[in-house]
Amino acid sequence: MTTTALIKQIKKKKSFLCIGLDVDLTKIPSFLLEEEDPIFAFNKAIIDATHHLCVAYKPNTAFYEAYGLKGWESLEKTIQYINQNYPEIFTIADAKRGDIGNTSTMYAKAFLEDLAFDAVTVAPYMGKDSVEPFLAFKNKHTILLALTSNQGAFDFQTKTIDDKEVYKHVLETSKSWQNSKNLMYVVGATKAEYFAEIRKIIPDSFLLVPGVGAQGGSLEEVCKYGLNNSIGLLINSSRGIIYASSEKDFAEKAATKAEALQQQMNKYL
Amino acid sequence: MTTTALIKQIKKKKSFLCIGLDVDLTKIPSFLLEEEDPIFAFNKAIIDATHHLCVAYKPNTAFYEAYGLKGWESLEKTIQYINQNYPEIFTIADAKRGDIGNTSTMYAKAFLEDLAFDAVTVAPYMGKDSVEPFLAFKNKHTILLALTSNQGAFDFQTKTIDDKEVYKHVLETSKSWQNSKNLMYVVGATKAEYFAEIRKIIPDSFLLVPGVGAQGGSLEEVCKYGLNNSIGLLINSSRGIIYASSEKDFAEKAATKAEALQQQMNKYL
Repeated sequence: MTTTALIKQIKKKKSFLCIGLDVDLTKIPSFLLEEEDPIFAFNKAIIDATHHLCVAYKPNTAFYEAYGLKGWESLEKTIQYINQNYPEIFTIADAKRGDIGNTSTMYAKAFLEDLAFDAVTVAPYMGKDSVEPFLAFKNKHTILLALTSNQGAFDFQTKTIDDKEVYKHVLETSKSWQNSKNLMYVVGATKAEYFAEIRKIIPDSFLLVPGVGAQGGSLEEVCKYGLNNSIGLLINSSRGIIYASSEKDFAEKAATKAEALQQQMNKYL
Repeated sequence: MTTTALIKQIKKKKSFLCIGLDVDLTKIPSFLLEEEDPIFAFNKAIIDATHHLCVAYKPNTAFYEAYGLKGWESLEKTIQYINQNYPEIFTIADAKRGDIGNTSTMYAKAFLEDLAFDAVTVAPYMGKDSVEPFLAFKNKHTILLALTSNQGAFDFQTKTIDDKEVYKHVLETSKSWQNSKNLMYVVGATKAEYFAEIRKIIPDSFLLVPGVGAQGGSLEEVCKYGLNNSIGLLINSSRGIIYASSEKDFAEKAATKAEALQQQMNKYL
């Protein structure tokens, strides 16, 4: 999907919400466990109930790998279901991959070509030749970890190299990589005060923002400093939406939570 | 597996060789493509021919994910085959994972518990709370990326924070994490001149060393500066061993290559 198509969808739906499909079998409604594929059954219901309120879905691969072969199958079915039924939706494999060149190409092929996600999250530690293989895919997007939403972000990301934080070096250096126009960045909502600085370095890029809600980030703060002329934000919420209820009405309640966020977003557009 | 058991195996086999099972269907002998599961058939033959010459196997997950569900199944069969037939072998999932706490736990469970690998490689960018969930598994090992073997290592890893390189901060900081005794580190053989400095920070830890052979690293140099009192090295070779021949004799030729490395290693023990 092109960035233009993503922006068009945001304007149409008046939403820049991304829903994280982080499915934990201990948290979904127990009656779903009788289904042949409870993970897919859960995702399908959530997607059918919320697709008009969000612009992106983001399954985190950890939650699927944790269930082995069956989990991987649920991931395949989920992405196929979205691509077939809601092709306007932007899809993100939250995989945080990254390896030496030829190996990164294998990961890129797996997520962007075979599973046909629009985007994949990638870790920057191994540098240019670990990320460029992902950037080579046309109309696909590589979402580079810059400043993450967890406490551990302060271990290395905010340390300074020549008076400039590591995450800023990641932002600046990555701009020079081949096909850098295909880059987006992960910036945690829990660090809203950093957004103004980040926008000085990458004024035009889309930011994928986890940490609103369950992790304590403020949507208002993020929008104040993060929005740009072409919106430039995808705000992710996972647990706050998908686990709104553990009863029969779980999908309906998830839609209610998603709509509340969408309506807040509408105010900032 | 305990580190003591690993060291015992190294002394018995007079080898600290790790064989990388990075199976690319375009590179394996073409007659294997007629098998129901060519990846597993290839791995099984390589393992049967080389298990007495090496102490560890390291499948890189990218090569399996690239083949979707079938690839994941081949990975499962491979690790099960090793654990059942050669339980003395140390097994490493080269996955380079890392995410926020509860999500890292899902990855750790997938690789260390369900697939029952002895170790998994992890990226340090997200810091302490992204790595500690892996360290919580008893008699399992977390192999943290420190200084990788690729060119991109110079983008961030060798930059200096307060006159000290980023990878040294990773080594030092990680020593304070809970269950840090379960840590090993990835240090590329292509940067042999760094080993002396690294040994000053982590004299006792095991280092997983890629980059000997195909990527140009020198075994002699690595051993000179990297060996410690309890050996402390696992030298990985992938392509140089497993693709030694594309004919019927591929496993036999792989064993010849592995034996050549084992005999060199024997000199340094």
